[in-house]
Amino acid sequence: MEYKEFIKDIPDHPVKGIVYKDIQPLIGDAHAFKHSLVGMKQLCNFVGVDYWVGIESRGFIFAAALADHSYDGFKMIRKKGKLPPSDLVSMEYGLEYGRDCIEMEKGSGRVIIVDDVYATGGTMTAAKLLCELAGYEVVDSVCLLEIGLTEKHDTKCLISY
Amino acid sequence: MEYKEFIKDIPDHPVKGIVYKDIQPLIGDAHAFKHSLVGMKQLCNFVGVDYWVGIESRGFIFAAALADHSYDGFKMIRKKGKLPPSDLVSMEYGLEYGRDCIEMEKGSGRVIIVDDVYATGGTMTAAKLLCELAGYEVVDSVCLLEIGLTEKHDTKCLISY
Repeated sequence: MEYKEFIKDIPDHPVKGIVYKDIQPLIGDAHAFKHSLVGMKQLCNFVGVDYWVGIESRGFIFAAALADHSYDGFKMIRKKGKLPPSDLVSMEYGLEYGRDCIEMEKGSGRVIIVDDVYATGGTMTAAKLLCELAGYEVVDSVCLLEIGLTEKHDTKCLISY
Repeated sequence: MEYKEFIKDIPDHPVKGIVYKDIQPLIGDAHAFKHSLVGMKQLCNFVGVDYWVGIESRGFIFAAALADHSYDGFKMIRKKGKLPPSDLVSMEYGLEYGRDCIEMEKGSGRVIIVDDVYATGGTMTAAKLLCELAGYEVVDSVCLLEIGLTEKHDTKCLISY
């Protein structure tokens, strides 16, 4: 599928110099959305996985649908202060523009981490550490698209720029 | 299914006096999650629907999975400043604790709006107005659970407190 026909370039968003990849046309198209979910799953080592972990908030879109699709559970990685405070682990990290902090409830099991965009890799690296700190075994990670700013990495990406 | 066994009460979160309903055990359980999606869909008038609209961020979980499940498209309602600024409509509204602003890209088609929790109904009422202002026809709305603080309303809710 020509996924890039469903991705819209938005120059200078959210800040000047960043070309934002708008995935709204893709997720809005029933066929393209379903196709992308199947494609993301096929990239992953999904055998024996317990949970698909979504990174707030657009990671939720793909992780939740993949969890349902695969008859697995779904877990959230949320921004600081959103999850109830008991049994919580936190991770602070550097972003393309600023700093951020993500949190997750403690648990166990084999997980695949899911996000929409892989840019510098900072969020995904922090998410992997967070999952491990929370008690999970990270077996794979997958994003809808990657922007070619980064060095070699092991996160599977369906669409490459 | 005894859904309430999968919902955890968190007193005084996010502020004192609010009993937060933690849905993490439900979405983390593959069977309970899938069961809740099917249950939410069955409550809705889903024939001829084009899009399931998720309200950021936990509404994304249910709306995205329901869109995939139903072979429909998925649309996002996001917090202010997150969506690219072209073709955008905004709606400010009062919350249980504070004020908020949600945004959506303009479009057309028949939609069902999806969120996790229905409390005062303020977010859902604003979301309906926002969808109409953006050009969509709202045919139904559904939440995973409702907290019995509210007057009679027409949003379908799978679990009632």
